[in-house]
Amino acid sequence: MIGFVCVHIGAGQHSETLEEKYKQLCQQASKQGVDILTRGGSAVDAVVAATVLLEDSPLTNAGFGSNLSMDGKVECDASLMDGGHLTFGACGAVAGVKNPVLLARHICDQQRVPLSLGRVPPCLLAGEGAHRYAIEHNIATVDPDSLISDKTIRTFKHFMKRFNRYQEHENKRMKYNTGFTSELQKQMDTVGAVCVDTKGNIAVACSSGGILLKRSGRIGQAAMQGAGCWADSTVGVVSTGCGEHLMATCLAREAARNIHASDCPTSALHTTFVDGFLESPLLRNVEEKLAGLLVIHVKGGRGEMLYAHTTDSMCIGYMATNNKKPRSRMSRLPAGAKHGCSIALEGVSF
Amino acid sequence: MIGFVCVHIGAGQHSETLEEKYKQLCQQASKQGVDILTRGGSAVDAVVAATVLLEDSPLTNAGFGSNLSMDGKVECDASLMDGGHLTFGACGAVAGVKNPVLLARHICDQQRVPLSLGRVPPCLLAGEGAHRYAIEHNIATVDPDSLISDKTIRTFKHFMKRFNRYQEHENKRMKYNTGFTSELQKQMDTVGAVCVDTKGNIAVACSSGGILLKRSGRIGQAAMQGAGCWADSTVGVVSTGCGEHLMATCLAREAARNIHASDCPTSALHTTFVDGFLESPLLRNVEEKLAGLLVIHVKGGRGEMLYAHTTDSMCIGYMATNNKKPRSRMSRLPAGAKHGCSIALEGVSF
Repeated sequence: MIGFVCVHIGAGQHSETLEEKYKQLCQQASKQGVDILTRGGSAVDAVVAATVLLEDSPLTNAGFGSNLSMDGKVECDASLMDGGHLTFGACGAVAGVKNPVLLARHICDQQRVPLSLGRVPPCLLAGEGAHRYAIEHNIATVDPDSLISDKTIRTFKHFMKRFNRYQEHENKRMKYNTGFTSELQKQMDTVGAVCVDTKGNIAVACSSGGILLKRSGRIGQAAMQGAGCWADSTVGVVSTGCGEHLMATCLAREAARNIHASDCPTSALHTTFVDGFLESPLLRNVEEKLAGLLVIHVKGGRGEMLYAHTTDSMCIGYMATNNKKPRSRMSRLPAGAKHGCSIALEGVSF
Repeated sequence: MIGFVCVHIGAGQHSETLEEKYKQLCQQASKQGVDILTRGGSAVDAVVAATVLLEDSPLTNAGFGSNLSMDGKVECDASLMDGGHLTFGACGAVAGVKNPVLLARHICDQQRVPLSLGRVPPCLLAGEGAHRYAIEHNIATVDPDSLISDKTIRTFKHFMKRFNRYQEHENKRMKYNTGFTSELQKQMDTVGAVCVDTKGNIAVACSSGGILLKRSGRIGQAAMQGAGCWADSTVGVVSTGCGEHLMATCLAREAARNIHASDCPTSALHTTFVDGFLESPLLRNVEEKLAGLLVIHVKGGRGEMLYAHTTDSMCIGYMATNNKKPRSRMSRLPAGAKHGCSIALEGVSF
């Protein structure tokens, strides 16, 4: 069948000034994935290559240029699910790994290699142990601070200044609190990639620096099977948005489950957002419910890509093996729609 | 309604020599939980108190006396789900926290306390960051090595000797490999507790030192919402067994989902084991599928406790607020049944 790669660089609030740069990056990453496919690479190879490119870009909140934690560090989450083998690997809150998705891939690949003496290979490694695993397996490690970009230092300083003012001026807290949530949201550009290769195998990868000003050690959806990504024989899903809410609702897996159970993937995805997220009792006390999903669904040799979000915007790129050029799209909620409450949903067949 | 507390100390292979001690421990922990309820405590208070008692016992693989990792350390996972508020908190791969379930509880409780400036409270903290969180919030930390018991040192040395022999003698590897898996299984005594309080609120807690000889940084099901535990308004589920397989199948949540969708919780639990675990495509290459689930289901003011396992044995304790004494049960697969393939399932109404 036709191979297809799609990527996203987060559902959040993308500035119009940078829109062209974001779209170009998504195109480059999709093309990177398709180039791998046309050279005979697998879906896993393609999503990993696309994600590495996105991690290396300072525009995204993944790998280099990740959001800084409360103590000014970069700690990354990443995961990979191989729908052909139904295996999963992830790393969480890991510092000093240049491309966290390569670590996730190694952990995922090892799921198929039995360990001696009946031991079970780990599927999620965190923190210092994950870092040591990277060193032992020749996955590039770097000085943790080399993953900090100039832009993230500026952003960090800006928010810490407000945070400190908030802490110090008890009587003016409301003033400093207002508008902060939506500013934080702009910083949510985690990345993900979904691919079906020409053999029909699906793979999904995601990578994230996590929420700005997070606590050190916090693990988010990008390290969590079913929350950050899901891949099986016919569906691949990657999520982005507020990690804690994606984990509680296990949103990527929920979408796959609903798509399997439905004749119409589009309405299944809509149902997932409404029943599984916006109206989920698990999020009943959450005011703004922020998520985006990027999906590939294949059936009878044909496929479709779907994407949906409750955030102001979501930027995606895509390319099929029979396309000459990659495409991209900055999807925005229509005027008047309320972010965290409304859904934008679109799709493309291939 | 009648309050009820049940606990388990793992689905694995419990020696007959220690059976009475295991059962006594389960009784003590159940009684600890019920004592909390009769003093006006909540379901959350009860499962936490029961789990603390189990963590402190050297008989279990949780807290003090946890399995040692490949580098001879204790690193713990624990989580708590509060079915009344539908909140979840967990810590993973954390060293030097005396009672990991107290850390999980603190993280869970904080889900209901909005952070300043729209930040989202973390629900899973791992490693060093989790340890620092414990210190900041006055959750007892100890010298990490003080959680190592004499028994776990002996067990660790025994297995490392075999492991090293295996590594050194390439030509005799088969000899050293045989029987190792089932020996490792005996070391799976993670703990968990499920409670419904007299107001009808359900809570679930679990705690584990993880698989013996695990890699440092490995996070298992006991830190994972839906894999290790699940609680909502009518169902509470805690799991035990092979962490990676419980995470892939998200078994606790799957059981809750099936019970919600069925008129018969017993057959729903059986279906969960068959379709969601033993015959799950996610575990198609796994020879021995090891899991245990302990469940409370309430409906119309009445409740039932169910437990099931594919391991040789599972030890549970339980007590209702109108019982004079706690009870316990060492459930074993019937003779001839094959562990990892067969299911034992029992239940008690209250």
